[in-house]
Amino acid sequence: MSVKTKIPYIEQNQQRFLDELFELLRIPSVSADKKFRDDVKKAAEFIKAKLVEAGVDKAEICRTAGHPIVYGEKIIDPALPTVLVYGHYDVQPADPYELWETPPFEPTIRNEKIYARGSADDKGQMYMHIKAFETMMQTNSLTCNVKFMIEGEEEVGSNNLGIFTEANKEKLKADMIMISDTGIISNEHPSITVGLRGLTYVEVEVTGPNRDLHSGMYGGAVENPINVLCEMIHKMKDENGHITIPGFYDKVVELSNADREAMAKQPFSLEKYKKDLDIADVFGEKGFSTIERTGIRPTFDVNGIWGGYIGEGAKTVLPSKAYAKISMRLVPNQNSDEITKMFTDYFLSVAPKTVKVKVTPHHGGEPAMVSTKSTAYQAAALAVEEAWGKAPIPTREGGSIPIVALFQKVLGLDSLLMGFGLDEDAIHSPNESYGIFNYIKGIETITLFYKHFATLSKAK
Amino acid sequence: MSVKTKIPYIEQNQQRFLDELFELLRIPSVSADKKFRDDVKKAAEFIKAKLVEAGVDKAEICRTAGHPIVYGEKIIDPALPTVLVYGHYDVQPADPYELWETPPFEPTIRNEKIYARGSADDKGQMYMHIKAFETMMQTNSLTCNVKFMIEGEEEVGSNNLGIFTEANKEKLKADMIMISDTGIISNEHPSITVGLRGLTYVEVEVTGPNRDLHSGMYGGAVENPINVLCEMIHKMKDENGHITIPGFYDKVVELSNADREAMAKQPFSLEKYKKDLDIADVFGEKGFSTIERTGIRPTFDVNGIWGGYIGEGAKTVLPSKAYAKISMRLVPNQNSDEITKMFTDYFLSVAPKTVKVKVTPHHGGEPAMVSTKSTAYQAAALAVEEAWGKAPIPTREGGSIPIVALFQKVLGLDSLLMGFGLDEDAIHSPNESYGIFNYIKGIETITLFYKHFATLSKAK
Repeated sequence: MSVKTKIPYIEQNQQRFLDELFELLRIPSVSADKKFRDDVKKAAEFIKAKLVEAGVDKAEICRTAGHPIVYGEKIIDPALPTVLVYGHYDVQPADPYELWETPPFEPTIRNEKIYARGSADDKGQMYMHIKAFETMMQTNSLTCNVKFMIEGEEEVGSNNLGIFTEANKEKLKADMIMISDTGIISNEHPSITVGLRGLTYVEVEVTGPNRDLHSGMYGGAVENPINVLCEMIHKMKDENGHITIPGFYDKVVELSNADREAMAKQPFSLEKYKKDLDIADVFGEKGFSTIERTGIRPTFDVNGIWGGYIGEGAKTVLPSKAYAKISMRLVPNQNSDEITKMFTDYFLSVAPKTVKVKVTPHHGGEPAMVSTKSTAYQAAALAVEEAWGKAPIPTREGGSIPIVALFQKVLGLDSLLMGFGLDEDAIHSPNESYGIFNYIKGIETITLFYKHFATLSKAK
Repeated sequence: MSVKTKIPYIEQNQQRFLDELFELLRIPSVSADKKFRDDVKKAAEFIKAKLVEAGVDKAEICRTAGHPIVYGEKIIDPALPTVLVYGHYDVQPADPYELWETPPFEPTIRNEKIYARGSADDKGQMYMHIKAFETMMQTNSLTCNVKFMIEGEEEVGSNNLGIFTEANKEKLKADMIMISDTGIISNEHPSITVGLRGLTYVEVEVTGPNRDLHSGMYGGAVENPINVLCEMIHKMKDENGHITIPGFYDKVVELSNADREAMAKQPFSLEKYKKDLDIADVFGEKGFSTIERTGIRPTFDVNGIWGGYIGEGAKTVLPSKAYAKISMRLVPNQNSDEITKMFTDYFLSVAPKTVKVKVTPHHGGEPAMVSTKSTAYQAAALAVEEAWGKAPIPTREGGSIPIVALFQKVLGLDSLLMGFGLDEDAIHSPNESYGIFNYIKGIETITLFYKHFATLSKAK
């Protein structure tokens, strides 16, 4: 297929743009798993090389205590506005591998989509920026200075990005930050994200007896840590889907009726949503719609649970330990550290004295809001309208990009969240995909954005 | 060490008896896991060879739809009583391997105990019978006919043993069945098991959305199957440790006060029990003691649970599925099939309509009682008293040996449960062990049993 765009250079180079992305997708840069350490490094080197090829003045791989950050810049005129592009080259773990129709690190095209881990989150979306930059360089149309900061630890909490940002404030000076790590409502309804949820992620360990026991010899007399963990998790929510952690909702910003009515106007079909997921019904906090539940309300989910014998067949064990990974999505003005503490206190308080409980915080991030009145948003709206033929709808998204709050705090800069993913992309799941249309249209929209941003900035 | 016995042959051959057992323990005959299939076969061949060496008239490996059954017999005089020895050569899976101090299939002696998977359950205990038989053959003192039936599927529910027993009623004709797959209270308090719990074992699967989802995009609006599974498990028991499945206790035989008082006289220290397990307190059904909870009351335990992301680091997934392995120990007169159905009905009834639930029964077994008035029990009591210097205490054990009920039904024979394991043996756990003292003393006790059984049988 060839995607039509307003920029001939992009149309002429589509195949190469895809080939290069495929090369990047073949590198299993899973940041959460030590065994992929060398691949993460390889992905960083790939990005640096492609920035140089695309025409940056300088590019470097910056070491951190964890995975490196790739930095590159093209300064055409200090008097012109500067755009700081943020993205990440690391990906989520790909397991369970057996559920992938084609292997996660062998990108494949089906139904005009690219199937691979990271195709949408965030390699595909991040790489659009490098190809948009190349397009402007090759067509002599770059109207702003550009800086790239592409990290390798987004999927594990961006632990070292804060240190790097703090230490490089001068280098990172810019007028705005542009991030493509979000989605649009649909290809018929382009949209721009103006709200993001924060995140608290913890791992809990419940210990009963000091060793695995025979459930026949001890069952009935010794507390089973799996049963206890189930009970403790159950106690975190009531029957109305309301989270029971004391103080949890205290700082939640309640939307005005007018805001809620505006949200309700977003195109959304509950029937289609249920059918797509093959569920008989949705479930969430009583008194809120599905769009509100995923956009403006905090959540509590168990992301993983394990304990006892989970192999083939049967084993009559009364296990010593049970574990869970638990995350909470946060909304303005909840604070990640405060919520982690509230959860920990409450979780420990509901534990019976027959077990020992340990809570280990993984990583957190703050919720964020983006103003629709900024020059960046206005320029983005013009670019979307020019490329897609429709004005974008401002939306709130459920996912978390904790670095948005970080950039605001450390660099004093607002982020523009112009991503082009779709719900069906199944990011973080098996068979993650990214539409070829979205990839190419994204490159076009980003290229057009620079033009409008320079014009609007000059007019101010 | 050398264990003193009343039979010189046993003392003289202790080292060889240990060496042969070690050879058997080195074969990882895990019946639950397909990848050990060849090892299971190897263990069967080992048993057959050792029966022949010990002096049976014939020995054979009998094929079944699963793992084979080893059969052997020595008929000295059809007029004499016949003892049918049952045991199993398969073992539980050994994972988690990393918790073993020495590898599970490399038997090692520490603190006068043999550490290895199967050392107590049941290779060590089963092999005592072959060595007791050898002793009687070599010392010309065999006073009964002997038949051996050693199976390879005990740890996976003995699915094919029933078929085999049914098809070989004539061949298996005997006066009693002798099984060593239970324990004694302590080496200072020898005991014989007179009651066994039954078992129901199921696997449950809870399905929410049809694929793993990003918890940021869907969290809060789509029911999380792990949260649901936790809630459903929680609903199976109330705060008094009472199982809430309707009808669950209907057929439970309540013990008389006299019986309960007799049980309370068993030597038992709750402080030692808690210290040994490193727990602040025990937990179980309100109104019953620890000995009662593990002996005469039914239980509900989750033996394994899993779902979502359980690897290193963090993954913000809202999983499609969550699973658990659940078992219930049964007491007279509960019935395994009935309880499986009650559980299934209730479990399905507490599921919200936002998920799909599947229950797969694994295997079950009926609870059993052994009379203290039988010739076999009386002969065993005399043998224990002669070997250990103390009369045995009749006890009820929490574990399940479903084949006891099967033998009663198909062969019309009572089983004598004369095992010599200890609680500390940690069967089904990492670092399973079996005392050298118990192994040698067991061989002696079994040998003495034959003498008393022949004498008492003749006197009748």
